[in-house]
Amino acid sequence: MIVSLKHDADAGRVLNELAGRGLWVSRVERSASGSTVHYVIASHSQPADPADLARIDGVAEVTTPKPAHPLVAAQGPVVTVGGVKIGGASPVWMCGPCSVESEGHVLEMAQVLAKLGVTFLRGGAFKPRTSPYAFQGHGDAALGWMRRAADAAGMLVVTEALGEGHVPFVAEVADLVQVGSRNMQNFALLKAVGRAGKPVLLKRGMASTIEEWLLAGEYVLSHGASGVIFCERGIRGFDDSTRNLLDLGAVALLRHVHRLPVIVDPSHGAGRRDLVLPLGRAALSAGAAGLMIETHPDPGAALSDGPQAVPLAQLGPVLSDLGGAYAKEAVQ
Amino acid sequence: MIVSLKHDADAGRVLNELAGRGLWVSRVERSASGSTVHYVIASHSQPADPADLARIDGVAEVTTPKPAHPLVAAQGPVVTVGGVKIGGASPVWMCGPCSVESEGHVLEMAQVLAKLGVTFLRGGAFKPRTSPYAFQGHGDAALGWMRRAADAAGMLVVTEALGEGHVPFVAEVADLVQVGSRNMQNFALLKAVGRAGKPVLLKRGMASTIEEWLLAGEYVLSHGASGVIFCERGIRGFDDSTRNLLDLGAVALLRHVHRLPVIVDPSHGAGRRDLVLPLGRAALSAGAAGLMIETHPDPGAALSDGPQAVPLAQLGPVLSDLGGAYAKEAVQ
Amino acid sequence: MIVSLKHDADAGRVLNELAGRGLWVSRVERSASGSTVHYVIASHSQPADPADLARIDGVAEVTTPKPAHPLVAAQGPVVTVGGVKIGGASPVWMCGPCSVESEGHVLEMAQVLAKLGVTFLRGGAFKPRTSPYAFQGHGDAALGWMRRAADAAGMLVVTEALGEGHVPFVAEVADLVQVGSRNMQNFALLKAVGRAGKPVLLKRGMASTIEEWLLAGEYVLSHGASGVIFCERGIRGFDDSTRNLLDLGAVALLRHVHRLPVIVDPSHGAGRRDLVLPLGRAALSAGAAGLMIETHPDPGAALSDGPQAVPLAQLGPVLSDLGGAYAKEAVQ
Amino acid sequence: MIVSLKHDADAGRVLNELAGRGLWVSRVERSASGSTVHYVIASHSQPADPADLARIDGVAEVTTPKPAHPLVAAQGPVVTVGGVKIGGASPVWMCGPCSVESEGHVLEMAQVLAKLGVTFLRGGAFKPRTSPYAFQGHGDAALGWMRRAADAAGMLVVTEALGEGHVPFVAEVADLVQVGSRNMQNFALLKAVGRAGKPVLLKRGMASTIEEWLLAGEYVLSHGASGVIFCERGIRGFDDSTRNLLDLGAVALLRHVHRLPVIVDPSHGAGRRDLVLPLGRAALSAGAAGLMIETHPDPGAALSDGPQAVPLAQLGPVLSDLGGAYAKEAVQ
Repeated sequence: MIVSLKHDADAGRVLNELAGRGLWVSRVERSASGSTVHYVIASHSQPADPADLARIDGVAEVTTPKPAHPLVAAQGPVVTVGGVKIGGASPVWMCGPCSVESEGHVLEMAQVLAKLGVTFLRGGAFKPRTSPYAFQGHGDAALGWMRRAADAAGMLVVTEALGEGHVPFVAEVADLVQVGSRNMQNFALLKAVGRAGKPVLLKRGMASTIEEWLLAGEYVLSHGASGVIFCERGIRGFDDSTRNLLDLGAVALLRHVHRLPVIVDPSHGAGRRDLVLPLGRAALSAGAAGLMIETHPDPGAALSDGPQAVPLAQLGPVLSDLGGAYAKEAVQ
Repeated sequence: MIVSLKHDADAGRVLNELAGRGLWVSRVERSASGSTVHYVIASHSQPADPADLARIDGVAEVTTPKPAHPLVAAQGPVVTVGGVKIGGASPVWMCGPCSVESEGHVLEMAQVLAKLGVTFLRGGAFKPRTSPYAFQGHGDAALGWMRRAADAAGMLVVTEALGEGHVPFVAEVADLVQVGSRNMQNFALLKAVGRAGKPVLLKRGMASTIEEWLLAGEYVLSHGASGVIFCERGIRGFDDSTRNLLDLGAVALLRHVHRLPVIVDPSHGAGRRDLVLPLGRAALSAGAAGLMIETHPDPGAALSDGPQAVPLAQLGPVLSDLGGAYAKEAVQ
Repeated sequence: MIVSLKHDADAGRVLNELAGRGLWVSRVERSASGSTVHYVIASHSQPADPADLARIDGVAEVTTPKPAHPLVAAQGPVVTVGGVKIGGASPVWMCGPCSVESEGHVLEMAQVLAKLGVTFLRGGAFKPRTSPYAFQGHGDAALGWMRRAADAAGMLVVTEALGEGHVPFVAEVADLVQVGSRNMQNFALLKAVGRAGKPVLLKRGMASTIEEWLLAGEYVLSHGASGVIFCERGIRGFDDSTRNLLDLGAVALLRHVHRLPVIVDPSHGAGRRDLVLPLGRAALSAGAAGLMIETHPDPGAALSDGPQAVPLAQLGPVLSDLGGAYAKEAVQ
Repeated sequence: MIVSLKHDADAGRVLNELAGRGLWVSRVERSASGSTVHYVIASHSQPADPADLARIDGVAEVTTPKPAHPLVAAQGPVVTVGGVKIGGASPVWMCGPCSVESEGHVLEMAQVLAKLGVTFLRGGAFKPRTSPYAFQGHGDAALGWMRRAADAAGMLVVTEALGEGHVPFVAEVADLVQVGSRNMQNFALLKAVGRAGKPVLLKRGMASTIEEWLLAGEYVLSHGASGVIFCERGIRGFDDSTRNLLDLGAVALLRHVHRLPVIVDPSHGAGRRDLVLPLGRAALSAGAAGLMIETHPDPGAALSDGPQAVPLAQLGPVLSDLGGAYAKEAVQ
């Protein structure tokens, strides 16, 4: 909201009144003469009532800016995918290998994962790799393996569409179509994914602002996606102690202020297995609707990202610990 | 640790063996001829045994780098201040106003805070302000008010030493001497604070790497501080939706890998009251030993940082919720 | 290069010898016992001779890491596009409107630009826009207008391919195919653009490292592009005083260390017309082979990015000033 | 300036009129109903006339925000130190070793530097070092050596005050008192340095916004400094190819929009000798009033920062090349 002040207003008093209501005043502009003061404020978790603010002594006008992403703003905090509520009473787990390695491999994993309460089978068929000479994934074949493994185990499939050309096939196979970090502002892909009409898991770009992320969500919804779920996986930081810089403030903001469903990927966020549990727990406490976790029966033999994969045999206790963290949050 | 390989080693196999042990391989260097491979690895939460690694087929030598901050490395995860264990079985709360406003004001607050289980009274006597024309704090007088208020309520005092000249007086009054973000690499201050012999709460600089932060801790310990507790309060981000970018990956890293006590300040991290609870909970889940939270009986009348202060009347339920999050973590 | 030391080497002396040769020592690893020291060094502008380094007292072995991007490393500093050398004795200007607005508009501009010595007509046919509701460009029609305007004026065309589907048509029309910042790691697009066999102008991603940028160049070359020219247009910064953070250190590094052709876009770098001249001059001084500058006959009426467009009537003196800066650099 | 619009204004037309005048519109706020539009704009290099803007059809009011740093705003682009104009017709060179190593060493260097036209002898007496175990400088003795060397050669002295306690002595010895990056928001030091009444060279903090930098300048001026010169030395980046990220956009902004004198330190900006010349030239082209360059007769034997020091024997040709770049700029 934009709160404009009367020429003779006591600006300090008005600011205090706003702060007293818990409003987050993000920008203040004053004129040299002191005759005009403009406050620009973002809404609190508990939306403020413009009529109430207009009654504050010294306030001339309260206006609500037009939302830049009306479809995202209207969506709400729960998106249902294949009967599973994301953002509901139970946390959602999306687990699987970084790369899908063979049909047998993913069939076996899915059986184990389903028993642990994992609802989404994740896995890379087409891998975005920084180098053209790195393993690029098993492609279309791997998509078929995932679908059959998920069906056999009663799971859903989430996987990434790497290019416009693959969207129709990916959308046919996947229950939830993922857009990766490097493609968050690949607008041709966002439009193609939207047109497929499926729900979308939209990973945040490495240096994307919250506003750009929400607008990318608006792209997929305005082109036909049936829902959008945001996924924080770490942004670019200046310290190489962790692979990326996990921004849980953004998660809290999307969940508690914008009231949108967010999944967190602590595997990429930390890049190291030993921090997946504490950061996963922290993510759920901040408001995440679920987690995307890379796992592998034998991380030492994984085709990619072994150091961040949780050994499959340890995943059960990890998820049961994390389930407790979510339950605590859900009470709020 | 640095793992060097034999000239005829199968590098891929060695890497897999390391990943299989959950080791975080942060840098790999290969020669063009393939004849020499150097792996540089950081330790896992569960420290690896060099002798075990040396037995991997193809490994020539395993060496442990000399720690750059031996005193910090030797300190351990618990620091006791005035009989209160920071990093122990109970979470530590450090609460109070951004600026100390009057003796009566802080006396009353301390009485309430003590009853809520807050052990440290925090408050600014000297305020670091971006503008020379902003309120700079009530200075020495405010230090005295804090001390008397804390004594009357049976609390401890944590407050910031802003300049070398003030260190002796601050160290006399405070149980825990705070070094602020803007001074994390003010080496003259670090030395002076160290010489005072008190425990130090060291806030992370806005663009400081983990290594620089640990080395700043080494400064205070090597000059005589009786202990160092780290405090994450958010680093500089590129998005103004939140005041700072709270780096909970760094908290998990300090707690679980470096095994050091960390306090998190979600008030500055978010800059907005409505995110203090979810981010506080997330911080404890990530491994924080406690939280520093700004509070005020009437945030609308606060002399500084009103929008991020939790109203004193709401602090009780907030702390009781947060206590639960810590208990969950402590079980690990 | 990786310089490994003998067990009894005087490490400090070796480091000094390396520094004395102007070598940039980027990482040093030491063992606790002091028995092994590893130096990892990047090459200086004047490549060091491994045999010379091996003769330094205390050095055990000097190895040259395998280049991660061999095709980029082999390309060299000059790429010829339609008979125009980029990276040669004369600076290359790429000018035109942010968005192509009508056929007449671009025809007239091209006539003026050609007379000013501008060799490339730039202009957006498909625009990457943060919001789905913003003007997205006149599309295929605009591509035709640009081609006819360039032909009539004896100019070349550089324009962006926004999606894989458009690559064939864009590659048919353009002499130089641009990949935008937001698509620098859109690997499906990089492959499609490479397969078109044309030279590519590769803009740097907003948070891309130099290594990632070079590897993206390797993608287009390894898929068939006839050459790659890099374009710095500013990365994501934390200060909104300028639109982006122009990284001229990266330009100097690519030109003087990696010996590659780089174009700089000061219009996007600064986002404001009044800084285009000083930053354009600075870019050429740092080693840019040319500049991409947005211009418009009437910036106040531009469909997008008006504030950063140089008025067409002022472009002549600007380019003549900039030509002088390049001449100065070319002497080196 | 803040431009407020009439309720029935055609906002697009007003925006175009502003862009046509070359104004940089940094923030636009609109109400949902469209009835109120607020534009917040920063000034162009050529300051706009509020009366002219007020005549634009649809504009209700034009107000000029109160400057947050009035003393800095009033200072102007030239500061004279010991008779040498910084920001005048000639570029100013500040050269010397990273650390002052002995009296003879600095005496000899000063003789050579003076002959090359270097007016300021720079050198570290007290060194800010990330590790407490690194060489901290020769201290007070080194200050005396520098003063005598400068006097003998007819040069001026610029050196850093690392702590409040040292300010009086440093201010007695130095003609220009430097505040380092890590202390840019060490407010106790800024006040002490201001009180010394000398001109100040204020290095930018590693993650400081332009506004914070200008306010730090306001601190020293409001406490008595006779002038403030800003120094850009690179900010924290995410890529370790260069030591820091030199922000020449900030230099152009300070020089051409804020009209303040700026020195650039390409030695720290790049961290590597081979980029000092191209980045130095770029800095002068962007508007720098001079350069701070580390030099050493034998960089391989330097006590600190050898890899970034230009060998003293090569400094002459480097400075003569750089002088040409400045002359070119000065014509503008």
